[in-house]
Amino acid sequence: MIGEIIAIGDELTSGRILNSTSYFAASQLFGAGHEIIAMSTIGDTAEGIGISLKRALDRSDFVIVTGGLGATSDDLTNEAVAEALGRPVTFYPELFETICTGFPQDDLSGGTGTLGQPGGLLPLSRPQLEKLAWLPEGAIILKPGARMAGYMLVHNERPIFFLPGVPYEMKELLVDRVIPFLDARTDKKARHVSQKVYKVFGLPEIEINRVMKRLEGQDARIRIGYYPVFPEVHVSLSVFGETRAENGMLFKQYDLEIMAILSHHVYGVDDESLETVLAALLRKRKLRVAVAESCTGGLVSHKFTKVPGSSEYFMGGVVAYNNELKERLLGVSVDTLSQFGAVSGPVAQAMARGALALIPADYALSVTGIAGPDGGSREKPVGTVYIGLATRFETRDFLYRFSGNRWQVQALSTFTALELLRRKLLGLPLVD
Amino acid sequence: MIGEIIAIGDELTSGRILNSTSYFAASQLFGAGHEIIAMSTIGDTAEGIGISLKRALDRSDFVIVTGGLGATSDDLTNEAVAEALGRPVTFYPELFETICTGFPQDDLSGGTGTLGQPGGLLPLSRPQLEKLAWLPEGAIILKPGARMAGYMLVHNERPIFFLPGVPYEMKELLVDRVIPFLDARTDKKARHVSQKVYKVFGLPEIEINRVMKRLEGQDARIRIGYYPVFPEVHVSLSVFGETRAENGMLFKQYDLEIMAILSHHVYGVDDESLETVLAALLRKRKLRVAVAESCTGGLVSHKFTKVPGSSEYFMGGVVAYNNELKERLLGVSVDTLSQFGAVSGPVAQAMARGALALIPADYALSVTGIAGPDGGSREKPVGTVYIGLATRFETRDFLYRFSGNRWQVQALSTFTALELLRRKLLGLPLVD
Repeated sequence: MIGEIIAIGDELTSGRILNSTSYFAASQLFGAGHEIIAMSTIGDTAEGIGISLKRALDRSDFVIVTGGLGATSDDLTNEAVAEALGRPVTFYPELFETICTGFPQDDLSGGTGTLGQPGGLLPLSRPQLEKLAWLPEGAIILKPGARMAGYMLVHNERPIFFLPGVPYEMKELLVDRVIPFLDARTDKKARHVSQKVYKVFGLPEIEINRVMKRLEGQDARIRIGYYPVFPEVHVSLSVFGETRAENGMLFKQYDLEIMAILSHHVYGVDDESLETVLAALLRKRKLRVAVAESCTGGLVSHKFTKVPGSSEYFMGGVVAYNNELKERLLGVSVDTLSQFGAVSGPVAQAMARGALALIPADYALSVTGIAGPDGGSREKPVGTVYIGLATRFETRDFLYRFSGNRWQVQALSTFTALELLRRKLLGLPLVD
Repeated sequence: MIGEIIAIGDELTSGRILNSTSYFAASQLFGAGHEIIAMSTIGDTAEGIGISLKRALDRSDFVIVTGGLGATSDDLTNEAVAEALGRPVTFYPELFETICTGFPQDDLSGGTGTLGQPGGLLPLSRPQLEKLAWLPEGAIILKPGARMAGYMLVHNERPIFFLPGVPYEMKELLVDRVIPFLDARTDKKARHVSQKVYKVFGLPEIEINRVMKRLEGQDARIRIGYYPVFPEVHVSLSVFGETRAENGMLFKQYDLEIMAILSHHVYGVDDESLETVLAALLRKRKLRVAVAESCTGGLVSHKFTKVPGSSEYFMGGVVAYNNELKERLLGVSVDTLSQFGAVSGPVAQAMARGALALIPADYALSVTGIAGPDGGSREKPVGTVYIGLATRFETRDFLYRFSGNRWQVQALSTFTALELLRRKLLGLPLVD
C-alpha cells in the first residue's frame, strides 16, 4: 500500500528537534512492503494540519500522523482533525479512566509520555487529563488500557493512524498495531518485496558504486541503493517480484552476486552493527578484549559496552588522555614517549601491550591520535591516528590519516579499531 | 521570510537514512528569523520532485531543496527541475573544470562529497564527471571553485537553493551562502525574532510546563516551547516584536522571569551542552577531572573528550567493567565488593577514590549500576545506579533508579554524573 507520514510540531519546523520518528516509520513500513510517497513536517497550526491531512488522503492508501496528541496547550491534532474531517471531538470515558489510573512512582528520570509522565511525581491537572480523553468521532483507541495516546480513524475507507510524538510510544504502536493492521488489509496479489542491507566500512561509496555497476539495470525487479551513513556505507538490495517464489529466487541470486563483489568489506547485514558482530565473534570463541585509548576518549570502550551482556567479553579499558597516565597506568616508557611522541606507532604498541598486562584479556586495542582541531603539525596533521592491536603473541600498529572534524576523526578511529579486531578474528587481511 | 525545505532521496522515504539536514536547515533559518512552514521528504522520482517544487513556490518566499545532485544514476534533481520549471539543462564549462581538478590524495576515510570523493583514490568516470556540470538554465553556482555541488535559481522572483544531500557540504553552503543571501533580501520592516533556548536536565517536561504556565498566553508577541530531547528538556523563548527595541525589552523581561523560575535547573543556553559548560568551568578554575566507570562503559570519559582542548582538564579514566579490574586498578577491596556488591554506594565511593589515587586530578566521578536488560534483582532492579563524587577532601555517593532501556540508562547515568559535577563546582544543591 502507498502511504504518507505527517509529523506535527513547531519543535520540528523550527529545527529544535530532529524528526526521528518519521524515519523509523518509513523504515518499518518499507520493510513490510509498503511504499512511502511523501513525508511531511508541519508546525502546530490547526489549518496546516487539516490541509496536509486532506491532501494526503487524496493520494495515499493510508496516512500516519505523529505528534500533537499530548496534554499541553500547543497540542492541536485532535481539534484540527475534528474540523478538517467533520468529526466533532467526543468524550471517551474508558480512556479517561485509564488516564486517571494511578501512575507508578518509580521513575525519576524525567521521561514524559503522552498520557502523563511515567514518574507520576507531578500529575497533570484535571483539565489537562480531560483534554486527553476528547477524540474525533469514530476514533478507535490503538491500545486500550495502555497509558499512551494513539488512535485510528477510517475515513473514506482509508485508515489514518494518529500516533504520539514521543518516540518510544510511537514505535511501539507502529510495530504492534499499525503494521499488523496494514498487513491484514494488503491485497494478497500485491507485489512482494524483499530487502537486505549490506553494511560496509572502509570502502568509499563511489568505489562501491563502481564495482556494483554491472548488477544495476539488469532487471527491472531489482533495485540497488547506496546510502552513506557516516562512517559506513549501507548497500540495499530490494527485490520486487510477482510471487513469493520468484522473489526468493531473484533474491538468492543477487545476494550471492553482491557478497562475491563486496566480500569481506561487508561486516554485517540488516540490523547488525559492528559492535554486535564483534560481540557474537568474541562470545563464540570465548575471547576477551581490553582497550587503551587516548584521542577517542572512551568511545571504543563505550561501543563494546553498548551491547547487552558485553561483560562476558569486554573486560575494561583505560582512557589515558594524559601522558603521565600512559606511563603510570599502561607502562609506556618515558623514552618511547619522548623519542617518538605520544602519537606514534611505538606508543600505540606499548599502550596495547600495557592494556594486556593490566587487564585480563586475549586481545587489546589501542588508539592514539590527533582528533583536532588543534594539536596538528606538519608531520602529524590533525587526523593522524595510530591504532595498536596486541594479542598474547604479537603486537602491531597501523597508521591512518583521517579527514574530518574532531567528531569524525573520533568516530573513524573507533570504527577502524573495531574493524581491525573483526578482521583479525576472522583471519581477513588487516590492510586492504 | 517564509520558506519551505524539500529533501530528496529514496534513502529517506525508505527510512534507510535519518534526514538530519532538513533539521539543521530549519534550526538555522529559524534562528535567522525566518519561518519554515513545511518540510517535505520525497523519493527519487522526477515527477515527485517537480510537483513538490511547484507547490512550494506557490506558498513560500524561498525554497531549499537538498539532495539528488550527485554523480550516480539515481540523482535526478537537475533533470526534474529543468522539466518542472522549463529551464533546460546547460553545460557549465567552469564547473566542469573545477570538477576535473586533481583531487587530494590524503583521505582514506571513505567519505564522499558530491563532486567526487575527497579520497581521490577512485576517481569518477568521465560521464559521471560530466553529469555534474549540466545544470538548469540560469543556475548560479553557490561556491565557484569549491569541490561541491550547489546552486541557486531565481524563479518568479523567488530564490530556490539546491544544496547537496551530503550533510557537511549542505551545512557549509547554508551558513555561508543561503542565510546571508536571505538576510540581504529580507524586508527591513519584517518582524524581528529573537530566540533563546534554555537547557534543562533533571526536571520532567510536565513539571517545567506547570511552573512556566503563568508566563504563557500573557502576550501574543511571546512564544514558549517545550522540547524533550532525551534526556534533557529544552525550553525556548521566542519574541516576535515590531521593532528591534521592543524585542530587546520584551526579551530581557521574559529571560529574567524564566531564569527566576527554572533557576539552577538550567545548565546552559542555546548551543551549550553539559560538557561544554563543564569544560568552561573546569578551565576557568584550572581544575582537573578523572573518571572511573562501569555500566556507562566509557561514555562519561567520552563526553568530556568530545570538547576540543579537553586534555587541559580531563586527565583520563578507567572503564572497570570487570570486578577484578575494580580491585586491581581502582583498589576497591574484595571485602567491599563481596559485602555490598559491585553496584553499591561503598563501591561507587571506592571507585571514585581509586580514580583519584591513580590519576592526577582534583575531582573524580564514578558510575556503577545495572544498565540492563539483564542483571537486575528485586533489591537492585535494572536502572539502579550509584554515582560517586570524590574530591581531595571528601567522597560522596548518590543513588538513582532510572527507567528505560540499556541505552537510556547509560545516557541518564552519564548526564547525571556530569550534572553532579557541575552543581558541585557551582556550589548548588547536589540533590533536589
